[in-house]
Amino acid sequence: SAFQFNIVDNMFSLTVATMGAAAIFFFAARSLVAPKYRPALMVSGLVVAIACYHYFMIRLSWQSAFGYADGSFSPTGKGFNDFYRYADWILTVPLLMVELIAVMGLAKEVARPMLTKLVIAAALMIGLGYPGEITQDWTTLMVWGMLSTLPFLYILFILWVELGKSLATQPPSVRSLVSFARLLIVATWMFYPIAYGIRGDSLPGAIPGLIPEKSGLGVVGTQIGYAIADITAKAGFGLLIFFIARAKTESMTDEER
Amino acid sequence: SAFQFNIVDNMFSLTVATMGAAAIFFFAARSLVAPKYRPALMVSGLVVAIACYHYFMIRLSWQSAFGYADGSFSPTGKGFNDFYRYADWILTVPLLMVELIAVMGLAKEVARPMLTKLVIAAALMIGLGYPGEITQDWTTLMVWGMLSTLPFLYILFILWVELGKSLATQPPSVRSLVSFARLLIVATWMFYPIAYGIRGDSLPGAIPGLIPEKSGLGVVGTQIGYAIADITAKAGFGLLIFFIARAKTESMTDEER
Amino acid sequence: SAFQFNIVDNMFSLTVATMGAAAIFFFAARSLVAPKYRPALMVSGLVVAIACYHYFMIRLSWQSAFGYADGSFSPTGKGFNDFYRYADWILTVPLLMVELIAVMGLAKEVARPMLTKLVIAAALMIGLGYPGEITQDWTTLMVWGMLSTLPFLYILFILWVELGKSLATQPPSVRSLVSFARLLIVATWMFYPIAYGIRGDSLPGAIPGLIPEKSGLGVVGTQIGYAIADITAKAGFGLLIFFIARAKTESMTDEER
Amino acid sequence: SAFQFNIVDNMFSLTVATMGAAAIFFFAARSLVAPKYRPALMVSGLVVAIACYHYFMIRLSWQSAFGYADGSFSPTGKGFNDFYRYADWILTVPLLMVELIAVMGLAKEVARPMLTKLVIAAALMIGLGYPGEITQDWTTLMVWGMLSTLPFLYILFILWVELGKSLATQPPSVRSLVSFARLLIVATWMFYPIAYGIRGDSLPGAIPGLIPEKSGLGVVGTQIGYAIADITAKAGFGLLIFFIARAKTESMTDEER
Amino acid sequence: SAFQFNIVDNMFSLTVATMGAAAIFFFAARSLVAPKYRPALMVSGLVVAIACYHYFMIRLSWQSAFGYADGSFSPTGKGFNDFYRYADWILTVPLLMVELIAVMGLAKEVARPMLTKLVIAAALMIGLGYPGEITQDWTTLMVWGMLSTLPFLYILFILWVELGKSLATQPPSVRSLVSFARLLIVATWMFYPIAYGIRGDSLPGAIPGLIPEKSGLGVVGTQIGYAIADITAKAGFGLLIFFIARAKTESMTDEER
Amino acid sequence: SAFQFNIVDNMFSLTVATMGAAAIFFFAARSLVAPKYRPALMVSGLVVAIACYHYFMIRLSWQSAFGYADGSFSPTGKGFNDFYRYADWILTVPLLMVELIAVMGLAKEVARPMLTKLVIAAALMIGLGYPGEITQDWTTLMVWGMLSTLPFLYILFILWVELGKSLATQPPSVRSLVSFARLLIVATWMFYPIAYGIRGDSLPGAIPGLIPEKSGLGVVGTQIGYAIADITAKAGFGLLIFFIARAKTESMTDEER
Ligand SMILES: CC1=C(/C=C/C(C)=C/C=C/C(C)=C/C=O)C(C)(C)CCC1
Ligand SMILES: CC1=C(/C=C/C(C)=C/C=C/C(C)=C/C=O)C(C)(C)CCC1
Ligand SMILES: CC1=C(/C=C/C(C)=C/C=C/C(C)=C/C=O)C(C)(C)CCC1
Ligand SMILES: CC1=C(/C=C/C(C)=C/C=C/C(C)=C/C=O)C(C)(C)CCC1
Ligand SMILES: CC1=C(/C=C/C(C)=C/C=C/C(C)=C/C=O)C(C)(C)CCC1
Ligand SMILES: CC1=C(/C=C/C(C)=C/C=C/C(C)=C/C=O)C(C)(C)CCC1
Repeated sequence: SAFQFNIVDNMFSLTVATMGAAAIFFFAARSLVAPKYRPALMVSGLVVAIACYHYFMIRLSWQSAFGYADGSFSPTGKGFNDFYRYADWILTVPLLMVELIAVMGLAKEVARPMLTKLVIAAALMIGLGYPGEITQDWTTLMVWGMLSTLPFLYILFILWVELGKSLATQPPSVRSLVSFARLLIVATWMFYPIAYGIRGDSLPGAIPGLIPEKSGLGVVGTQIGYAIADITAKAGFGLLIFFIARAKTESMTDEER
Repeated sequence: SAFQFNIVDNMFSLTVATMGAAAIFFFAARSLVAPKYRPALMVSGLVVAIACYHYFMIRLSWQSAFGYADGSFSPTGKGFNDFYRYADWILTVPLLMVELIAVMGLAKEVARPMLTKLVIAAALMIGLGYPGEITQDWTTLMVWGMLSTLPFLYILFILWVELGKSLATQPPSVRSLVSFARLLIVATWMFYPIAYGIRGDSLPGAIPGLIPEKSGLGVVGTQIGYAIADITAKAGFGLLIFFIARAKTESMTDEER
Repeated sequence: SAFQFNIVDNMFSLTVATMGAAAIFFFAARSLVAPKYRPALMVSGLVVAIACYHYFMIRLSWQSAFGYADGSFSPTGKGFNDFYRYADWILTVPLLMVELIAVMGLAKEVARPMLTKLVIAAALMIGLGYPGEITQDWTTLMVWGMLSTLPFLYILFILWVELGKSLATQPPSVRSLVSFARLLIVATWMFYPIAYGIRGDSLPGAIPGLIPEKSGLGVVGTQIGYAIADITAKAGFGLLIFFIARAKTESMTDEER
Repeated sequence: SAFQFNIVDNMFSLTVATMGAAAIFFFAARSLVAPKYRPALMVSGLVVAIACYHYFMIRLSWQSAFGYADGSFSPTGKGFNDFYRYADWILTVPLLMVELIAVMGLAKEVARPMLTKLVIAAALMIGLGYPGEITQDWTTLMVWGMLSTLPFLYILFILWVELGKSLATQPPSVRSLVSFARLLIVATWMFYPIAYGIRGDSLPGAIPGLIPEKSGLGVVGTQIGYAIADITAKAGFGLLIFFIARAKTESMTDEER
Repeated sequence: SAFQFNIVDNMFSLTVATMGAAAIFFFAARSLVAPKYRPALMVSGLVVAIACYHYFMIRLSWQSAFGYADGSFSPTGKGFNDFYRYADWILTVPLLMVELIAVMGLAKEVARPMLTKLVIAAALMIGLGYPGEITQDWTTLMVWGMLSTLPFLYILFILWVELGKSLATQPPSVRSLVSFARLLIVATWMFYPIAYGIRGDSLPGAIPGLIPEKSGLGVVGTQIGYAIADITAKAGFGLLIFFIARAKTESMTDEER
Repeated sequence: SAFQFNIVDNMFSLTVATMGAAAIFFFAARSLVAPKYRPALMVSGLVVAIACYHYFMIRLSWQSAFGYADGSFSPTGKGFNDFYRYADWILTVPLLMVELIAVMGLAKEVARPMLTKLVIAAALMIGLGYPGEITQDWTTLMVWGMLSTLPFLYILFILWVELGKSLATQPPSVRSLVSFARLLIVATWMFYPIAYGIRGDSLPGAIPGLIPEKSGLGVVGTQIGYAIADITAKAGFGLLIFFIARAKTESMTDEER
């Protein structure tokens, strides 16, 4: 329906603007932190810039997928829309890992292997989720979803534990921020499988068939869910990274160059 | 009517130009204040840049909503026009809070909780107002309007009190500016609910039904009201923030790097 | 007629180019004066940049207002053309005031109230003139014109007196420039009401009905008059401001940082 | 004819490219001379940038003036083409005067009055020439041409004499360059009235009627003549100004900052 | 088929985005390494920028080669698509050689002849491969492929041996990275002839005719194979070069300026 | 034929990309050499930037000269295509002379007259060659070609001799590079008259009529020949200039600022 079309279109528009503004902010804010933490902000800026570009393409794809006759379908394959998002994730999720580890300031020997494991898990998670995203068969979606959830849980576990461990070594002003970072990651990342599940639930044969089939609600819910998740997990998270970098910068005034 | 179409179109055009000029000014003016206050100007520049972009889109949306046959309606849903504005607010109002608090130079322990409360209240205010903005039913509009007014009053109250308290700790040259800032915020923010009410008053069943229904005056009044409010609350306010930063910069000549 | 169309179109084109070139010059020339006077040049650059943008829009509006059949009229309302100019003035005239006062280097206590009075007078002058600009009735035009002339004279009076007073406190090399600035302001600003009157004189019922009605000469004269006035009052005046800043920079070699 | 159309079109294209390349060069070359002479290069860059923009418009105007049917005429008035060139001159000729006097490094008291006289003469020369440029009547063209030649000769005379006088005060390495500059100005400026005369000579009734009427040769010769003159008088001359600035920079190594 | 068209189109889109992001990263990351290694990063940035541009053109070419009627062919010659890739390689492969040798920090006398040999071999490899890429005849493809494989093996051999030799002279922290670089080059470069062979295998008469003819799988496999290879061999490799430069920078803290 | 059209179109595309990449490189590489040699790199960057722009126009011209019906001719005069190239040469060849002499670091008294002679000879060579390039008559082509060859040989002779003489005064590390530069100039410049002759040989009446008339081979050979020549003579040569500047920079470490 037109309302559904518009609400998703608006959400995409808001996401483009937020990512763009965030990119300008992160790049400009590098001068507000110590040189040691500037790469973290640069990566953050890169993440939201990539997201801004992809959401711009996603919005174009959404607009060309539906003609105006009150939301009827036009020939562009809808599958195309979903690839842009996964292409975006496959670039930005590893970068988010890099960003977080960079601002922790961990020793190389700890950081490097952890980052490698996280990046591989991220690639697995995204790769295993894609077949489920483009299918219209509930069983397929569930199978791939579950496979994808394994590396997903692994990542969340590693991050939770490692961030917890690092709490002891962080300056006091930073501890609450790092603690909050842990919560934020888990909270925002939860949205992704939920959004994925919303779409699943609208397919024929879905087990808790709460969402009526063919109502479009599934698609709408998924797209909006992912957009909200992306804003919080990329721009919001980057902002938190900035606060952590800022706090650490202020607590190192003497040794700081 | 054509006159009404043009007057709103012109207002949007003026707003785009003002926001653009303001953005160039705030970004360039960072070099005129001490490093401590530059983030405030950068945020100010970001606010008007975001507003410039959104008003450009709002103007396009307005132009595509009306064909030329002396102002007759064409198929683009008018609801779309309003979302751009609320999308803009949801990004810029929190940033305005940040900007103000940044230039106050308050201690972190005071600033952080205050900012959190203000941002949450801002999100509530905007979120609660949107349903009323898109409805054509007067009762709905009034209900949501009143709900939205609660966080609105809360914000104004907090800002009034806190700015008042900070007067004692500010350098003398800044006090009158800060005092004026308090007044400006209240005066300009008043325009928003008034503009909202103008639209409400043109709906069927409005209680002080001062504005004739179906005359288009309601829509025209709302759009122009919001545009004037936005110019003063964003560009004008940012200019005031600049003056405060400038005054504080000049009063700190020795410790200043 | 085609000739009339072209002469105005050419004038607008020349104005766009002049304002653009002036903007590049003023922004680049900031490095040629002391830091104290750079804001004046930045504001000057902003003024001509805003004028360049508006004249570009004015030219587009002029071109779309007339189809080629030897200058026949096409549907775009001509009222639209005039708003761009007034929108431009409402932004640039206050900035011109700022620019002039900035380069005078007056003490804050003197500058601030004077600037406030001038800006309010400027807004009044422009606001009161607009109804007369868009009317086709001679009496209306004259009434609003006279109302607008009051703040107009007030501004000229204040500037003449204040600039005269400041002559005593300026370095010798600057005095002739400041003197010339006074003359320039009065001379160029005279063009505005004259151009306004030319249009008035072409309306039916004009008292010294020197300009034949319906000849288009009125419109042509007004547009060209305003364009010439704008070039001298913005680019020419900004150039003078530059010379004053340059002269003052050279006379302060020791204390200058 | 197609050949004539192409040869002029090619010439314009070459001019656009040359002016553009020259602009990049002059702006970049400012770092190669002492700060005292950088404004001269900046003005030079501005001159060729303005010329580049105008020739781009002139080329567009030329292309839209002739449809393809082997060079037949289409509705755009040809008068328009000529205005762009005069608009360009009215901005660039005064700037050329500024550029030359800036690189001479003359004392203010000498430079200022001389510049004023030259700029006024330049404006006269261009203003008096325009009516002759757009007319199709030989007598009119000759009359205005002769009137224009008066300030033209005045300018050449002043420059010749003053540059000659300054030879004594210039460092030795610069003298030959300044001498050459004198010759270059006279040589290139000669092209303008000659090109003007070529067009005149193709009109009915021309006294040495060397150019066949209606052959298009007149127009072609004029346009190409002006283009060559513009390249040498703006880009070539600017290059010479650069060499002079460079030579002077090298001869002032100690006092130079 | 539409699915095949989309999968290749998506891959190209992902490649454009990855190369673009990588370019921004490498150029910005120059400030994170010692001046001695910045040229290596600049070349890396240039490589991915060139690849980004070419893949953008490749994607346009792919989209214009197929009309929508479920993947039917439209008139643009498909040969054109392949040239863009080879044009890209002939610029980027030599640059990759330069990049690697630059970060090794070898002595000039060793670096120069080695680079010359590698660049010539690279040109041979690409030149000899092109005829095979554009042919539809299996025998031709195999012949040229084998010829191309000779310089290919030569390059891999030289790099393996030389990188191995340099291991002794590198700081300890860098050895594992250089070792990994060797492996990465061989692993990623293997993809190229494999992708080439996939296309070959789909032609009529292919010896291990594993890929059905006329199924489009050949083309799809080749394009995707090359895209993956390019991402790893250019962006991935450049990232490794960055890590090597970073590690070397950190191990030279004292002599480093 | 389509194949011929494509091969030339591809060559032009490769040239645009190479020149663009080279421009970015030369401008960025200025920071890698001593200030004394930076102008040489700037001129080099300017040369390839101008070539990039012209080849972009040449490619557009080529594409608009041939409609798709398997390479049939459409109305744009082919003469236009050739002018772009000569326009490019008339700007870039003198700049190449400047570039070479700048990096030699010769004394002013030697450099200036030599440069003047070379630039005049270059202008002659290009001017005399153009009539032959646009003619379809073999005799005309030969006559102008021979006239053009005279200044061509003069330039090569002067460069060979002078570069040879300078070998003695250059630092040792540079001698082989300068020696190679001599060879490169002669080798690449040979391509130009050869390409010119290829076209000539395809005309009716050509003496060694090796190229069949009307086969298009002549045109194809010429265009590709010139493109290869341009890449080597501008980008390749500029790269060599860079190496020479780099070598000289390294041999002057102490006096170098
Ligand atoms: C668990 C799970 C998923 C998780 C996706 C996640 C966690 C995506 C995170 C994306 C981010 C953080 C993007 C921007 O940076 C999928 C693939 C939807 C499929 C089903 C199961
Ligand atoms: C009270 C009230 C409202 C208030 C809106 C405000 C106060 C908006 C402020 C916007 C700003 C400051 C934007 C730019 O920065 C609504 C939502 C219209 C709805 C009805 C009641
Ligand atoms: C007196 C008078 C007028 C004066 C206008 C002026 C003085 C405008 C100045 C504009 C400038 C300076 C613009 C650019 O910076 C009006 C409004 C035409 C109306 C009639 C009477
Ligand atoms: C004498 C003379 C003329 C001279 C024109 C000149 C001297 C123009 C110079 C232009 C320059 C220098 C432009 C670019 O900077 C006219 C007006 C053609 C008219 C006829 C007589
Ligand atoms: C062996 C072989 C080939 C190898 C190609 C290679 C090794 C290309 C490398 C490209 C790179 C590294 C590009 C980007 O930087 C060809 C020509 C396909 C043809 C068949 C045999
Ligand atoms: C001898 C000769 C020619 C030589 C041309 C040359 C030598 C051109 C060089 C161009 C360069 C170096 C361009 C880019 O920088 C022509 C005119 C084809 C005509 C026939 C004879």
